[in-house]
Amino acid sequence: MCPQVIFHPKGRAVDVPEGTNLLEAAILAGVEVNSACAGRGVCGRCRVVVEGPVDSVRTDKVTKEEWDTGYRLACHSKVTTADCTVFVPAESQLQPMQIVGGKVNETIRGLSPLVQAKNVLLRAPSLQDNDGDLERLVKQLGFEPGELECPLPVLRKLSTMIKEKRDDVMVLLADRRIIDIRPGDSSHCYGAAIDIGTTTVAMEIVDLRTGETVAHVSDYNKQLMHGEDVLSRIMHAEDHGLSGLTHLIVDTINHMLARVSVLGDDCMAKPRRICACEISAVSIGCNTVMAHMFLGLDPTRIRYSPYIAVTNLPPLTAARAVGLKVNPRAPVYLVPGRASWVGGDVVADIVASGLAKREGTSLLIDVGTNGEVVLGNKDWLLACSASAGPAFEGGEVRHGMRAGDGAIEKVSLRNGVEYQTIGNVRPKGICGSGLIDLLAQLFLTGVLDKKGHLQALDRVRDGEGGREYVLVYSKDAEKDGYDLRATGMTCCPMDKVERQRDITVTETDITNIIRTKAALFAAAEVLLDTADMTYEDVDRVFIAGGFGHHIDLDNAVAIGLLPDLPRERFTFIGNGSLEGARQCLLSESKRDEAMKVHRSMTYVELSTDQRFFDRFSSASFLPHTDLGRSPSLK
Amino acid sequence: MCPQVIFHPKGRAVDVPEGTNLLEAAILAGVEVNSACAGRGVCGRCRVVVEGPVDSVRTDKVTKEEWDTGYRLACHSKVTTADCTVFVPAESQLQPMQIVGGKVNETIRGLSPLVQAKNVLLRAPSLQDNDGDLERLVKQLGFEPGELECPLPVLRKLSTMIKEKRDDVMVLLADRRIIDIRPGDSSHCYGAAIDIGTTTVAMEIVDLRTGETVAHVSDYNKQLMHGEDVLSRIMHAEDHGLSGLTHLIVDTINHMLARVSVLGDDCMAKPRRICACEISAVSIGCNTVMAHMFLGLDPTRIRYSPYIAVTNLPPLTAARAVGLKVNPRAPVYLVPGRASWVGGDVVADIVASGLAKREGTSLLIDVGTNGEVVLGNKDWLLACSASAGPAFEGGEVRHGMRAGDGAIEKVSLRNGVEYQTIGNVRPKGICGSGLIDLLAQLFLTGVLDKKGHLQALDRVRDGEGGREYVLVYSKDAEKDGYDLRATGMTCCPMDKVERQRDITVTETDITNIIRTKAALFAAAEVLLDTADMTYEDVDRVFIAGGFGHHIDLDNAVAIGLLPDLPRERFTFIGNGSLEGARQCLLSESKRDEAMKVHRSMTYVELSTDQRFFDRFSSASFLPHTDLGRSPSLK
Repeated sequence: MCPQVIFHPKGRAVDVPEGTNLLEAAILAGVEVNSACAGRGVCGRCRVVVEGPVDSVRTDKVTKEEWDTGYRLACHSKVTTADCTVFVPAESQLQPMQIVGGKVNETIRGLSPLVQAKNVLLRAPSLQDNDGDLERLVKQLGFEPGELECPLPVLRKLSTMIKEKRDDVMVLLADRRIIDIRPGDSSHCYGAAIDIGTTTVAMEIVDLRTGETVAHVSDYNKQLMHGEDVLSRIMHAEDHGLSGLTHLIVDTINHMLARVSVLGDDCMAKPRRICACEISAVSIGCNTVMAHMFLGLDPTRIRYSPYIAVTNLPPLTAARAVGLKVNPRAPVYLVPGRASWVGGDVVADIVASGLAKREGTSLLIDVGTNGEVVLGNKDWLLACSASAGPAFEGGEVRHGMRAGDGAIEKVSLRNGVEYQTIGNVRPKGICGSGLIDLLAQLFLTGVLDKKGHLQALDRVRDGEGGREYVLVYSKDAEKDGYDLRATGMTCCPMDKVERQRDITVTETDITNIIRTKAALFAAAEVLLDTADMTYEDVDRVFIAGGFGHHIDLDNAVAIGLLPDLPRERFTFIGNGSLEGARQCLLSESKRDEAMKVHRSMTYVELSTDQRFFDRFSSASFLPHTDLGRSPSLK
Repeated sequence: MCPQVIFHPKGRAVDVPEGTNLLEAAILAGVEVNSACAGRGVCGRCRVVVEGPVDSVRTDKVTKEEWDTGYRLACHSKVTTADCTVFVPAESQLQPMQIVGGKVNETIRGLSPLVQAKNVLLRAPSLQDNDGDLERLVKQLGFEPGELECPLPVLRKLSTMIKEKRDDVMVLLADRRIIDIRPGDSSHCYGAAIDIGTTTVAMEIVDLRTGETVAHVSDYNKQLMHGEDVLSRIMHAEDHGLSGLTHLIVDTINHMLARVSVLGDDCMAKPRRICACEISAVSIGCNTVMAHMFLGLDPTRIRYSPYIAVTNLPPLTAARAVGLKVNPRAPVYLVPGRASWVGGDVVADIVASGLAKREGTSLLIDVGTNGEVVLGNKDWLLACSASAGPAFEGGEVRHGMRAGDGAIEKVSLRNGVEYQTIGNVRPKGICGSGLIDLLAQLFLTGVLDKKGHLQALDRVRDGEGGREYVLVYSKDAEKDGYDLRATGMTCCPMDKVERQRDITVTETDITNIIRTKAALFAAAEVLLDTADMTYEDVDRVFIAGGFGHHIDLDNAVAIGLLPDLPRERFTFIGNGSLEGARQCLLSESKRDEAMKVHRSMTYVELSTDQRFFDRFSSASFLPHTDLGRSPSLK
């Protein structure tokens, strides 16, 4: 008989063979455990607390003190012959989340959605008007017979509806293709705009006849269990095949679609249940690797020079062909990308920001898992990928986390330690905006020097992972009166261990954050250099990314993430990938704009550009080696 | 235990429950027995010879004499509790056949086939030329990225081929859609042109790069077991659903495709095996009812006024969607029709004849199972359906049969009875051209009067089905020395009964033939009347149909089937539906021409036209009430 593993707080039990590691056991039990390094033991995301005998190896991701209270890495723990109980703490859980971020949600004028719903009252035929049903319908839609494609299943539906004497029909037109015919009186026509982030997937359900967003949902990308960044995912595909990753992302989206159907009942302005089959168009913004994995296209050559994608302009595909559980003939549109490392998500940012239609020159910085920078205006566009790393999304930072409930999103050290969490619940970690604040405040209060070294001051201690600054002592967090029930932990017999964790930032974390901000800054400088411009020529800076409600501009300038420009020049566009996808879902001119960007934007390859490495080195300080670049810092 | 039925000459055995009729038992045994009335006992096509106890009802389709030698109608014979043996005589077998008929096979200039094969040597990418694989390929094909559609499975194939370092590829382009990518060195690109006749299905396999026909095959439409004409088929669909009929026609074609693959080895000019997956385009000519049944579209409203089709312009469909076993993404094109009773087969006739491009006015008569007539030139076209009946395809004529081995195709009575059979084998029945000859010769020799009554002369006798003329006495057929082995019958223990059958034509048969020719003649006259013309204005008469190698023009004029015009004005185009489908497979301008005919041809509805009924009555004599119409008959 196999030993049993019980996972809390979900209470799921699973019998697994001896020697199974806990990460695999969690997958088998249907418990989603965070993992960023594909089980290599280097990310420390899959920390769990174990009761009962397991065969574990300790790495530096678990301190001696934590080890003694039962903390283990799931990926480095094997089930023995005996049963055991595993508690997955909040920070190691992959949970449904709502995305946070300023939304532009520009109203689209003159809707021309990917799929248009047209109501038609079918004309009855006669001996004189003896056209076929399809030809009569096509003429009533204002076209000549033969000008509209009509797939066979739709034609069969038409024939059935006419036989049943239904003459009031709704025709769904995707350009010149009739994708569906439905009863005219009771049908709706929705579209889904989706941002497939490496980390997070966000979705809006839009009424294609009004342009109104009727539901909004987001979740973690289930691929996270196979690595946090796109390179880990590609490596996983190389080792284990692509289909598992394709399945995970499609599954993530289908899961969200199922939630939207339920959400429809209680969360929408106009409460009614959305039927998945009423979702008749899908528009997706995502990076090139996610696009490949979603479409089942081999991504491996993206990893190696010359970094070639199978396509940066994915063809329209039917939902059925990719396994999305919406109307099977719904067209699935992916915002085109420019290159393997400047994908459709960046083009969507450009569309959402309106950068490519502006007279003045703008800079766009997408602080995503990878980090891309665009410079340009209505006449020209330059883009590059900074390979910045995921620090501002909480990656490569021990207590970093994505913007979600319990994330510390604001920090001030001016009057002692003050912080604020998303959802106002007990702090679980620090998200991007919190990290920017923390670094800036540590630097401005002298706790951190320009090279990123912590001074031996109050709250600085030597931990197992090196020197670290304690932002929140667990005992203080409790004193702060955060309601533990809000974290969903009180029902768990092991909640004590949960409370023991201090929230810290280590010098290694700080190095990672500095590397990320330096890469973004250097990338922007190379683009300016290429265009023979300086920051002064930039009259608008768009900042995209779901790394916090709003980042504090002064703090971001203080650490040298953003240039020291007049603050009114900065605009946050939040999740530009989602917003761009939404706009392309609703507007043909936005799709044309995306196509124009795909065709005309110049891609600057930084991996072979010496300028980038020079500027990166100069920017790897707080705020920069050249203090003249930050005049607003007194 | 169920009783066993053994079918000869195939020797197939099947166990069936008591009470099963022999027609159903034959289907279960995989033996194809002719049936034209869907088991109603009125067509007499399913005559079999039975040994052993069966529970049969005698109808007038089996003479007393035949009954005594064991002849029964399969559809009117039920299996009892005991085993029995059933012999299916040649004339009741549905067998693979080669179609007979003059072929135009016009060489198409400037091939622009439905699918074009383009060989490409893929350019290697670089850091400078970093387009995606698809975009590079599209540019090499001479298009801008985004101008070509590419289905996901093809894109995945491209990605795999590039990864495997295959740079020599063959791209198959259907208009602006890449339907497949294959290794460039070893691939072929074929298309199938198909005529789906109500009775017979004919197919040519064409090399799409050269236009050359590499294989040619035909077979009976398996739907025949559910009735001989389209009305019986529609009634069957109403009673039993459409899917069975759709399956039968798709199955017929797939069966032929399988034969072509084998035929490829030994029957082609350039012997090699054709792989079905290399057939990348399909072009079909057929009437509207066959089109509906093939596509799975409900045909029932075609039967009732105002006779409306689901479509006369079927959209391009992927082979997979209709279940054809060729390249799954091969486009399936159906030549458009004009109306429910003037279908794509007639438009294909027009394309094949070139009628719609001629200055002079032509008449086109399609002597098919139904019978359609077209009048017009490059400026205008009129068409109608004559509802002529299948007499010239052997239907509604007791010993009538389709043009195939053993069919009497020529008859002369001037120097005694002389006849010739197709394949020079023992006569099994009479096909269309033989019937025309026989009627004309009987009339000209005075055996038959102008009303269709047989005179009491030599070879005329009173049979059970009324007065009949014996064309072939079975004993004479043997004396004529026809090799019995050629009929495949000598191995059968029951071949004696086979030889006992005289080949006759009855007065009822003659009435049916006169009705058919009168309908065609009257239809042509109504069109002339509509155009305010006479036969003298017609400078060419095209005759389409697979009813014999060539019909004897003098005889056809003698019975009043064809107008008495100078013989050089007549052109036989054979199977115009197949030839038109072939031309549309190979040429965009032919497809445009078919589209133009679909759009511009005027359909004349005869069912409500008093002129038709008047002229039909006048033409229901030999040759016509008005002998002035046949000046060449001395």
